Amino acid sequence: MINIVLVSHGELGAALIQAAEMIAGHSDGVYSVPLLPGESPEAYGEKLSVALEPIEGDGILILIDLFGGTPYNVAAREALKERVECVTGANLPMLLEVLMSRDETPLSDLAAAATVAGQESVRNLGEMLAGRG
Amino acid sequence: MINIVLVSHGELGAALIQAAEMIAGHSDGVYSVPLLPGESPEAYGEKLSVALEPIEGDGILILIDLFGGTPYNVAAREALKERVECVTGANLPMLLEVLMSRDETPLSDLAAAATVAGQESVRNLGEMLAGRG
Repeated sequence: MINIVLVSHGELGAALIQAAEMIAGHSDGVYSVPLLPGESPEAYGEKLSVALEPIEGDGILILIDLFGGTPYNVAAREALKERVECVTGANLPMLLEVLMSRDETPLSDLAAAATVAGQESVRNLGEMLAGRG
Repeated sequence: MINIVLVSHGELGAALIQAAEMIAGHSDGVYSVPLLPGESPEAYGEKLSVALEPIEGDGILILIDLFGGTPYNVAAREALKERVECVTGANLPMLLEVLMSRDETPLSDLAAAATVAGQESVRNLGEMLAGRG
């Protein structure tokens, strides 16, 4: 199984997991590593390493709240490792997509699918209603 | 001032607001209306109406967690009203963009900017590192 790790400012990652559970029920192998207010990049990096180290399975997909900032800066280093992929701009449709697809999708394809799902989920209803979106 | 309302499954909207506050500090005129576990669409619709009704200012931009589901179904009705715009797939970069831009941007342009910011924030680091993204 591919494991999913949310890295975020505060409890955003945990809230994404809870929202996904309201829709799709509980999933194993889904983790949140929150950056707490006032926490240093060094302390957060150590916390993320400790969280990732015991995770076993077919790899880790890290979903990052934002391109830039401490969670990104720390997690992006992990993207250089084997069997780790990272996608930024985490939102609920992205998380639901990877939870549905991870059993039959290789890690790099899952990261690509997460990216497409995240991008395509962003829609402007006003433009859609006007036939422009 | 344009008001921002997050509608979401559970506390995702509140967590987005808290994450934005960690980066940009507190902002007035930003609200979360959570769908609670077990809450009916009717009860949620009533709650959203009650939350939106007293909001004054230059309009309301509703950021929705997901295209589909109760928060979307209820909030999309509001998109038919004057001075209300809705964007789905809410993420942290989208919220930060609208908080930065809302003072100088008309409502419909702000919805378009939120959409672009949300879409462009979703990036696959593996593809970027490989020069493909």
